[in-house]
Amino acid sequence: MKMIIQIFFIISLISTISFASVQDFCVADPKGPQSPSGYSCKNPDQVTENDFAFTGLGTAGNTSNIIKAAVTPAFAPAYAGINGLGVSLARLDLAGGGVIPLHTHPGASEVLVVIQGTICAGFISSANKVYLKTLNRGDSMVFPQGLLHFQLNSGKGPALAFVAFGSSSPGLQILPFALFANDLPSELVEATTFLSDAEVKKLKGVLGGTN
Amino acid sequence: MKMIIQIFFIISLISTISFASVQDFCVADPKGPQSPSGYSCKNPDQVTENDFAFTGLGTAGNTSNIIKAAVTPAFAPAYAGINGLGVSLARLDLAGGGVIPLHTHPGASEVLVVIQGTICAGFISSANKVYLKTLNRGDSMVFPQGLLHFQLNSGKGPALAFVAFGSSSPGLQILPFALFANDLPSELVEATTFLSDAEVKKLKGVLGGTN
Amino acid sequence: MKMIIQIFFIISLISTISFASVQDFCVADPKGPQSPSGYSCKNPDQVTENDFAFTGLGTAGNTSNIIKAAVTPAFAPAYAGINGLGVSLARLDLAGGGVIPLHTHPGASEVLVVIQGTICAGFISSANKVYLKTLNRGDSMVFPQGLLHFQLNSGKGPALAFVAFGSSSPGLQILPFALFANDLPSELVEATTFLSDAEVKKLKGVLGGTN
Amino acid sequence: MKMIIQIFFIISLISTISFASVQDFCVADPKGPQSPSGYSCKNPDQVTENDFAFTGLGTAGNTSNIIKAAVTPAFAPAYAGINGLGVSLARLDLAGGGVIPLHTHPGASEVLVVIQGTICAGFISSANKVYLKTLNRGDSMVFPQGLLHFQLNSGKGPALAFVAFGSSSPGLQILPFALFANDLPSELVEATTFLSDAEVKKLKGVLGGTN
Amino acid sequence: MKMIIQIFFIISLISTISFASVQDFCVADPKGPQSPSGYSCKNPDQVTENDFAFTGLGTAGNTSNIIKAAVTPAFAPAYAGINGLGVSLARLDLAGGGVIPLHTHPGASEVLVVIQGTICAGFISSANKVYLKTLNRGDSMVFPQGLLHFQLNSGKGPALAFVAFGSSSPGLQILPFALFANDLPSELVEATTFLSDAEVKKLKGVLGGTN
Amino acid sequence: MKMIIQIFFIISLISTISFASVQDFCVADPKGPQSPSGYSCKNPDQVTENDFAFTGLGTAGNTSNIIKAAVTPAFAPAYAGINGLGVSLARLDLAGGGVIPLHTHPGASEVLVVIQGTICAGFISSANKVYLKTLNRGDSMVFPQGLLHFQLNSGKGPALAFVAFGSSSPGLQILPFALFANDLPSELVEATTFLSDAEVKKLKGVLGGTN
Repeated sequence: MKMIIQIFFIISLISTISFASVQDFCVADPKGPQSPSGYSCKNPDQVTENDFAFTGLGTAGNTSNIIKAAVTPAFAPAYAGINGLGVSLARLDLAGGGVIPLHTHPGASEVLVVIQGTICAGFISSANKVYLKTLNRGDSMVFPQGLLHFQLNSGKGPALAFVAFGSSSPGLQILPFALFANDLPSELVEATTFLSDAEVKKLKGVLGGTN
Repeated sequence: MKMIIQIFFIISLISTISFASVQDFCVADPKGPQSPSGYSCKNPDQVTENDFAFTGLGTAGNTSNIIKAAVTPAFAPAYAGINGLGVSLARLDLAGGGVIPLHTHPGASEVLVVIQGTICAGFISSANKVYLKTLNRGDSMVFPQGLLHFQLNSGKGPALAFVAFGSSSPGLQILPFALFANDLPSELVEATTFLSDAEVKKLKGVLGGTN
Repeated sequence: MKMIIQIFFIISLISTISFASVQDFCVADPKGPQSPSGYSCKNPDQVTENDFAFTGLGTAGNTSNIIKAAVTPAFAPAYAGINGLGVSLARLDLAGGGVIPLHTHPGASEVLVVIQGTICAGFISSANKVYLKTLNRGDSMVFPQGLLHFQLNSGKGPALAFVAFGSSSPGLQILPFALFANDLPSELVEATTFLSDAEVKKLKGVLGGTN
Repeated sequence: MKMIIQIFFIISLISTISFASVQDFCVADPKGPQSPSGYSCKNPDQVTENDFAFTGLGTAGNTSNIIKAAVTPAFAPAYAGINGLGVSLARLDLAGGGVIPLHTHPGASEVLVVIQGTICAGFISSANKVYLKTLNRGDSMVFPQGLLHFQLNSGKGPALAFVAFGSSSPGLQILPFALFANDLPSELVEATTFLSDAEVKKLKGVLGGTN
Repeated sequence: MKMIIQIFFIISLISTISFASVQDFCVADPKGPQSPSGYSCKNPDQVTENDFAFTGLGTAGNTSNIIKAAVTPAFAPAYAGINGLGVSLARLDLAGGGVIPLHTHPGASEVLVVIQGTICAGFISSANKVYLKTLNRGDSMVFPQGLLHFQLNSGKGPALAFVAFGSSSPGLQILPFALFANDLPSELVEATTFLSDAEVKKLKGVLGGTN
Repeated sequence: MKMIIQIFFIISLISTISFASVQDFCVADPKGPQSPSGYSCKNPDQVTENDFAFTGLGTAGNTSNIIKAAVTPAFAPAYAGINGLGVSLARLDLAGGGVIPLHTHPGASEVLVVIQGTICAGFISSANKVYLKTLNRGDSMVFPQGLLHFQLNSGKGPALAFVAFGSSSPGLQILPFALFANDLPSELVEATTFLSDAEVKKLKGVLGGTN
């Protein structure tokens, strides 16, 4: 009897001195409004361990495509629990000859670790200087926020890497798609890149761009 | 006499209850070490009103160049007092036909206001969607952080704009220079952009790139 | 036929490897709830180029008022696309003898550039030191976050300047209005500023304050 | 008559040149959605002075419990006006022999000031170094973000302290409750702490844990 | 013997898997350069428990002055360990009739708790709305970042309060000293505040200002 | 000849319109002073591609120790280029029966991906709720900032995982070492954890603690 009362008091105590826990995390509620800081938070009573786990990174992405590569992101809202926590992950699969074309992440720096194969990676600074490395299994490289960078399979077999970002929503702008896979008029692409009309129109054809 | 004593007490009071003022600002000392947060701070006793002023924006930049345009930044350390304050400015001059090629600012969003002339400006989102506007005198456009954007003189005479950034060091990566004005090997440029060898070598020739 | 299939695969690829783009920007939805980080985000499918543009800065503000000056802000929600991007703009018009009275921006530093005329500007630091400059066309001055500052037309004709802030919602507290244009009881104004009762009541009369 | 018109113009002026004030603060609306940056904002028209005040810190917490201590937080949403402002408070009451067990605040550093009595306080760094102080009335100690720390009444009478946090939602994880007051299986507690089965089961009994 | 070896291995293990601890905290080294993020860090090997403690808040400040009040800050570098931790404290002493004049903290919100006496406190928003409260022992009020606010002893005896800030260097700009205790020319004070020449000169006389 | 001149002009142009690039990154100079924002920056002229690469993650850590596990961090200054970029990595090796004991990262959230084997991982919230998952190859789990969490090899063979942090200096506080591997007096450990004297002394013996 004494024990039961004691436990009752302890539970009261714990609930008294535990601060509202909701701000430990803000599991994404994709049906609520978004804000500049991310998705709305799910009611914490409905949060489960599954919100903090993500199973999509175990399977190789489909590399049967023009770049022989695939990027599998682990971001909110699919990875609901990562919302607002300032970190995220993605998986890179590069078949033989595969390449992640030049791209930027507007909102975060990226750090990569090679799990399998050999990757040639590099980035270009604001001063137009090139930083280039050949990375083998276990090697890591960091790409500072917002700078153009790429990863290319320079080995013989397939390559696998994981990349992490210092933001829950790093964004991804892939250069050739940004240039050639939309309706930005060819003359504007040409004027703002110095590329020739023929080259722009050829690549718009390949990548599905119009105008 | 009483007045003198009173002033003495007041000055004591003021010095007593004024908190250390150095963190109002951190005027750049270019000779000290830099940190991720910016330049070291100059001794506040040596700071003058001139540290908070910048006179370089009154003169048109030299547009006698390949892009018929000039960017005049107002950043630290030249603009010493702006260090660490989370904002900066630049002046854009666009002669007839001038263009600021596709570029990104890795560390800040940008907002532009047209002072003279007509500018066609646009940016491309992570979803490869194009947002394009023709801007006249007094019109403003905002370019979200890290996304590719451009400004092009689409009027008859010269154009002038000011742009502001939400960072003291926004960075600037100009796409054609990043691609073609350094020693990034042509085969890597080609593999990571889908551009042809001929096009890459031609533009490397024009912009001074090697390899 | 082959081309069509290829484009189909490319579009699939692009949609596969493009990360959710909504966090490139968070265009203000003024009907949704606000958060400490800003306005709710508009559905990105309904965002257009007009959300990123603002036309209100091309026209001089009405300076037929007691301060012979006008401030025209370019902030959310009127400038919907700027929400959450950490930068904003405003236009200052100062007729002859015009003045932007002493004021602060609680949430951001400000940088000013003079477009026309001559402006005497200054700020006061936490150490009560005054930093004062006379600025001509093209001159810039920076006002560190939260410190009292002012701009005054010290030339002969009208003056025009643009100011930028390192926040999408810098706030604006104008000292004489904060003191004399509300219901803060006169005795509290007097006790907390050392101003005389006569002065406070006179200015409350001029600026519409009560109590 | 002239005065009335003048006041009318002034009020127009003020409303014209006052920027939207809502972002001065974001008073918590507990019925709206939460975001990673905090609670939704109440309509500013419905905000009153009471939203910025909190009266719960004037009364001693109930220390008739196992730790002879009480923590009274002043956080949102109870303290609605503090939402999003990056600071918060709590009151610590320690009866004779009272202790705030080892705990962390995941989201903020803490600074304490002793109002009454004598408190032995300490924290442990990532390098496992212990920083320990005996604090008397008026003494302060700072506990860096996220590190284990404790406060213990080492005097004769009751002790009272106020603590402040550099976040509106610092969180609070109390070590013995985290270990022994939930359903984390005993074998996992043992494997991850090196504690013995007997000790874990005894403390689960005391603190109400299961499994 | 076996025990000694085991301890040796454990110590190795601990040193192996402990991450460099210096970034738990950055105790201010006042002799090193400052950066926008604060003071340089002292060598962690020379950091002691005394760096994290501060004893200056136990004694009432000297209120024999024009405002019958005193502010005792607990900031870096005097409180070395608080550097960079995003929080700080100060003590307010208000003798009978004492007042902390209208002031702002440019870099942080403030939360106050009354320890003794009765304080009338208030702040003014960007919309010129006044939020005013009478606070008794144990009552708290929050003042949003950068807004003008004041504290005034409205009780009979002396009053004591502690205030906390969400920054290690909140700054403090006291309005009447900013206006009248420096060399800002009287005509500029008058033009930017609407105060009369007589009033400005009288208060410059009282507070030690010149020009 | 014309070409040479043209290239000369282009190089001038590029150097003119490239903003100072140093703030793209701040490669750690371990000999310079540290600040709250991280290590001082190396002179950018001396930065090479090797500063952005790290090779220490390719080799399994030594798991011949009491926890049958090893953590290999990839942080500054060893990984110089990652300084200030808001992201970092570590490798976890867990031999059969290996465990990373309960620990916190005071300054960052963590996301884990399993490369090999089976890991039982979990964290405890501020509300003392347990979130527990068994993770297989390719599975990911996120641990919100500052909360106690653990990883335990629950499979048959060795396990390997990579973890990423949303900070360049996340810190690491391992609970049993924090409690038992230093000179925190036993009576304080007991009073602040509810552990028995016998248990505390036994574990101090095992882990090398004194007092």
